[in-house]
Amino acid sequence: MKKVKIGIVGLGRLGRQHAENLAFRIRNCELHAICSVVKEEVDELQREWGIPHGYTNYNDMLENKELDAIFIASPSGFHCEQIEKALEKGFHVFTEKPLGLHLNEVVRVKEAVEKHPDQVFMVGFMRRYDKSYQYAKQKMEQGVIGEPVLIRCYGFDPAKAIDGFMNFAKNNYSGGLFLDMSIHDLDLARWYLQSEADSVWAIGGAYAYPEIAELNDAETGAALVKFKNNTMGIFVAGRNCAHGYHIETEIVGTKGTLRIGTVPEKNMVTVFGDQGAVKECSEGFIERFEQAYLSEVEEFIQCILENRQPHVTVDDGVQSTILGYACKESFETGQLIKVQSHPANEAVYK
Amino acid sequence: MKKVKIGIVGLGRLGRQHAENLAFRIRNCELHAICSVVKEEVDELQREWGIPHGYTNYNDMLENKELDAIFIASPSGFHCEQIEKALEKGFHVFTEKPLGLHLNEVVRVKEAVEKHPDQVFMVGFMRRYDKSYQYAKQKMEQGVIGEPVLIRCYGFDPAKAIDGFMNFAKNNYSGGLFLDMSIHDLDLARWYLQSEADSVWAIGGAYAYPEIAELNDAETGAALVKFKNNTMGIFVAGRNCAHGYHIETEIVGTKGTLRIGTVPEKNMVTVFGDQGAVKECSEGFIERFEQAYLSEVEEFIQCILENRQPHVTVDDGVQSTILGYACKESFETGQLIKVQSHPANEAVYK
Amino acid sequence: MKKVKIGIVGLGRLGRQHAENLAFRIRNCELHAICSVVKEEVDELQREWGIPHGYTNYNDMLENKELDAIFIASPSGFHCEQIEKALEKGFHVFTEKPLGLHLNEVVRVKEAVEKHPDQVFMVGFMRRYDKSYQYAKQKMEQGVIGEPVLIRCYGFDPAKAIDGFMNFAKNNYSGGLFLDMSIHDLDLARWYLQSEADSVWAIGGAYAYPEIAELNDAETGAALVKFKNNTMGIFVAGRNCAHGYHIETEIVGTKGTLRIGTVPEKNMVTVFGDQGAVKECSEGFIERFEQAYLSEVEEFIQCILENRQPHVTVDDGVQSTILGYACKESFETGQLIKVQSHPANEAVYK
Amino acid sequence: MKKVKIGIVGLGRLGRQHAENLAFRIRNCELHAICSVVKEEVDELQREWGIPHGYTNYNDMLENKELDAIFIASPSGFHCEQIEKALEKGFHVFTEKPLGLHLNEVVRVKEAVEKHPDQVFMVGFMRRYDKSYQYAKQKMEQGVIGEPVLIRCYGFDPAKAIDGFMNFAKNNYSGGLFLDMSIHDLDLARWYLQSEADSVWAIGGAYAYPEIAELNDAETGAALVKFKNNTMGIFVAGRNCAHGYHIETEIVGTKGTLRIGTVPEKNMVTVFGDQGAVKECSEGFIERFEQAYLSEVEEFIQCILENRQPHVTVDDGVQSTILGYACKESFETGQLIKVQSHPANEAVYK
Repeated sequence: MKKVKIGIVGLGRLGRQHAENLAFRIRNCELHAICSVVKEEVDELQREWGIPHGYTNYNDMLENKELDAIFIASPSGFHCEQIEKALEKGFHVFTEKPLGLHLNEVVRVKEAVEKHPDQVFMVGFMRRYDKSYQYAKQKMEQGVIGEPVLIRCYGFDPAKAIDGFMNFAKNNYSGGLFLDMSIHDLDLARWYLQSEADSVWAIGGAYAYPEIAELNDAETGAALVKFKNNTMGIFVAGRNCAHGYHIETEIVGTKGTLRIGTVPEKNMVTVFGDQGAVKECSEGFIERFEQAYLSEVEEFIQCILENRQPHVTVDDGVQSTILGYACKESFETGQLIKVQSHPANEAVYK
Repeated sequence: MKKVKIGIVGLGRLGRQHAENLAFRIRNCELHAICSVVKEEVDELQREWGIPHGYTNYNDMLENKELDAIFIASPSGFHCEQIEKALEKGFHVFTEKPLGLHLNEVVRVKEAVEKHPDQVFMVGFMRRYDKSYQYAKQKMEQGVIGEPVLIRCYGFDPAKAIDGFMNFAKNNYSGGLFLDMSIHDLDLARWYLQSEADSVWAIGGAYAYPEIAELNDAETGAALVKFKNNTMGIFVAGRNCAHGYHIETEIVGTKGTLRIGTVPEKNMVTVFGDQGAVKECSEGFIERFEQAYLSEVEEFIQCILENRQPHVTVDDGVQSTILGYACKESFETGQLIKVQSHPANEAVYK
Repeated sequence: MKKVKIGIVGLGRLGRQHAENLAFRIRNCELHAICSVVKEEVDELQREWGIPHGYTNYNDMLENKELDAIFIASPSGFHCEQIEKALEKGFHVFTEKPLGLHLNEVVRVKEAVEKHPDQVFMVGFMRRYDKSYQYAKQKMEQGVIGEPVLIRCYGFDPAKAIDGFMNFAKNNYSGGLFLDMSIHDLDLARWYLQSEADSVWAIGGAYAYPEIAELNDAETGAALVKFKNNTMGIFVAGRNCAHGYHIETEIVGTKGTLRIGTVPEKNMVTVFGDQGAVKECSEGFIERFEQAYLSEVEEFIQCILENRQPHVTVDDGVQSTILGYACKESFETGQLIKVQSHPANEAVYK
Repeated sequence: MKKVKIGIVGLGRLGRQHAENLAFRIRNCELHAICSVVKEEVDELQREWGIPHGYTNYNDMLENKELDAIFIASPSGFHCEQIEKALEKGFHVFTEKPLGLHLNEVVRVKEAVEKHPDQVFMVGFMRRYDKSYQYAKQKMEQGVIGEPVLIRCYGFDPAKAIDGFMNFAKNNYSGGLFLDMSIHDLDLARWYLQSEADSVWAIGGAYAYPEIAELNDAETGAALVKFKNNTMGIFVAGRNCAHGYHIETEIVGTKGTLRIGTVPEKNMVTVFGDQGAVKECSEGFIERFEQAYLSEVEEFIQCILENRQPHVTVDDGVQSTILGYACKESFETGQLIKVQSHPANEAVYK
């Protein structure tokens, strides 16, 4: 069985996790090249893991003809350009979310992907590959909850991580709370509700960290979305969750309701002590979605080997970004925003 | 110790439960008179419980000089008039929610209450007297969750009860989903957030029961509310909950989060069987709030005996109604509604 | 409707709670007399609650011909004698558990009860009247779990209460861990399994409080019981539970399993904070069994009014005591004990 | 980095899972040879996975000098002989549990292992490598629950699997309920309590499947164990669990309690429907312990590469087997069994 040779760009926290998975835990896959602007990272992993090729320049890696696919785990601002280049060079491409930080570049990526229909393209909406989220989808397809009526999505980052975010956000454009944090939830909502957004009202504030308001961003926010099929979406995001990384999703249907992650349990242990019965919670996305990060890449490799596209498409990335922008615009203006009238969206649907 | 003599009007499901509590389970209280347009109900309870006085006409009961207080559990459309009459006759008054179904009559009640400051007046927002809701309030006052940021309230009636509702709603004005169902949640939100609403967007539909749309009402709906102190409120209400009576409240704060009733458990039993581990759920409000219905009346009696007013005031009834109307208006028009610009509200705040 | 006139003896913590229920929360019941060796308690409650008769001598109360029933909430060592006297005087009798602390006196009480078949006699196994325990029984009767195979019962007192116990136990005979703590569980097991015990092995120790070993008692212990119908019972009891009052029962059947009180939740609130998701726990028996303490007495009053006996009989008290003694004997000797060979039991079954 | 070359024997359900892990998901490891008496299995996996060597005879595989280690996943009756042979040939050895089915052969294996101290030997007590069980151990080491007092272990196989077991057990010696099912729990108890068993009483029956009694075995059983350090162990095992594969462990300590797997949740989804709130449960050991099966083998490979022994030793296998035999003897004789007086044990401790 041929092994798919991968070159990865970006060796930060999530990038390194992906690299380790690609190197050791994915069947029919070989991590053949690694690329980072931090030379020490490249040298260290090449040495420790025995990776044949190391680069500090992305363009150089794209010249490596042995590679089959490029895996993009670099900072969000680089995604679009790196996707386009890799597609032009004929590689299959996996990119971490978000597709991009600006609507126009996201639309450009969509065009690039459509120009290369024989190359596998996948965006890292890993939650769709999480066992619990997949199980919920399966239950819906079995009709267990009837027709969906409302989805509620919580996406909270742990309070422990807020200093790191503040340092990043002072010098970088994160996209803002709804694009940076809710993007996974917006994609999930579209997947479960099978509809696009019609209109949105988003509010929020900088409750414990007023300095976030100075960045014109929200620390915690909520958006109510009306979808075109008249279903409802509630999206709450925050960067200041005391108990950890809280990702929770609920789908209310005409005959039942599904909840995923009501309590974001770290593991199966309950600790009984002076305080009562305590369930400790997930500390971050790598802990919570360890299995999903593996499964999405297994699917990517399988798509390449079987010459097919994954069910997550570039459109999922585009539409989620459009909705994220509508949330952002609503939060910034205080207005109720009609999603379909958005100029970029027109471009997409033209 | 003197016993407070009560006359109750309305002996429907909840009225009868209140009557039984007043007759047998409340200290320093005597159910001295009962009133219902259904003569058989009056006769039966007088005979079975040994109640001295029975009436089929409310005005007649108000002439009974032995009574100290009037307890109103009649259909919502009668509340305002009955409150005003009882106050005029010098009685202490307890009224079931809602205060009224129309803004102008609610404002009129407020004026009537204010004209009789020495008579105890209480509106039946029993959740404030539920042990779990009280515990949450106490935790907030202890600073356990820091400052409140967001409240999420779910109020779902069981699907089993929808036929009864349809029969009622075809011939009566219920006030609509948000006034009829969310009114308790709107009151709770004001209580926990310590602020009034600024603006609201409400959406919804008639997903499993299209005939509800013909009544110009929603079967299931969601409202996002921005409060004047920039906190957020999410209110979801529905009449079609497969698993029972689901009342759930969550308060997200800057340092922690409280949830009340995550799973609306019927009792402490878990049933493990072919399907998995099953927690059966509450079937209705009398089952869920049995203790609260007792405790609120204990407080009412204590207020009379101690010559003080309860912490739930007529303003709580008025403000919740104003917000409920704003939700209703937003749902009906599709617009974002500014709550403070509402004419009735101006009246209240003048 | 005639009111049953009650005289209560014992106004300690649980006695006072019973007295308050009898005085104010039980239909068709009147607390007519109170008795305690502590004169101040008697005077205070007579004054505050308007109780007509007060006694410091139990025999004096028994001379009050207006009384219908005697309610015994005195220290365990007095139960047997007080039951016998009250029965002889023609009163209906409710006694708190345990029936007695010694096998011979318990057998004597059984004989006394049987000599007065027209007087209602009830022992305070209140758990049988708890809504959750009743629901479990009902599920079993519906066949939901098939035939019972095993019962597991946990009975843990809160660590906070251990100092109080130590003070008591140094000067009083408590009966030991299994008789004092497990007696409710032993009764529940017989009720759910519908069988008497065949043999038992009990172990334990004084893990955090070695001074309990000096009393020849266990701080925490476990008993495995084989029942005559070959079902199994596991009983764990302790006096040092960090998280509170933990009463948990599980019945494993051939087709399913029931659990009551998996987490001994104080209320419906979950507190999310630095530690994770916390369910606070019950602090003691009055908090946990508030409803059951009311319901058992409602049943006692109903039995008197309807001239019938409750389903909890004196035999339930006797058999549970016999099994408790077998546990105690096994713990003290280290031997496997055959329950049916116990001399007192022979007496009972003769 | 050198890759450890593994030859596996046994390609049944768990064997095949191990083989797949060894082939694709374990770092620094290569599945170099597979062995099964079923030639088709060997051929199929060699072809599909590209495994260099295939055998139908275990002795032939042991002649392959390229191999570093032998992985034993064959039926339990073969374990001891295959371990001894592999050790003699100089291989590192990983064996699935149980070490063996008879005390004398288990003692012989212990001697064989001790004769080859430079070869890594590991027995597949995978639960010690499960994240939740490891977390509990870590909490104990941090002193969170004080000193351990009691352990309760549940091990229930799903009712769905009972037909398969019956077919197997009619023609094979399974070791009986306690040796076959509880062996993991007995090992866990020793690990958490840090003590060996002193005495045991075990009971049980064939409640839904009387034919199991004909095999002189129990369908469901319970054992109470007194450990040498006076801590207590409760072990319940069964083959007829309606809701699935229920592995639950609780450790009660002097300052707190830990529970692992209170509800054996399949995933993070709760399904709300007519029945209530349903948590579906694990269907079997491969689903529940997927991560642990990977982690134990990662540790085995690391031990080989780092030239050290795992913390699970051959003694853990021997002692757990001795205790399992004592449970079996107690169940079969009805007697309380002193574990340390067992002849085989003397041999071990000599």
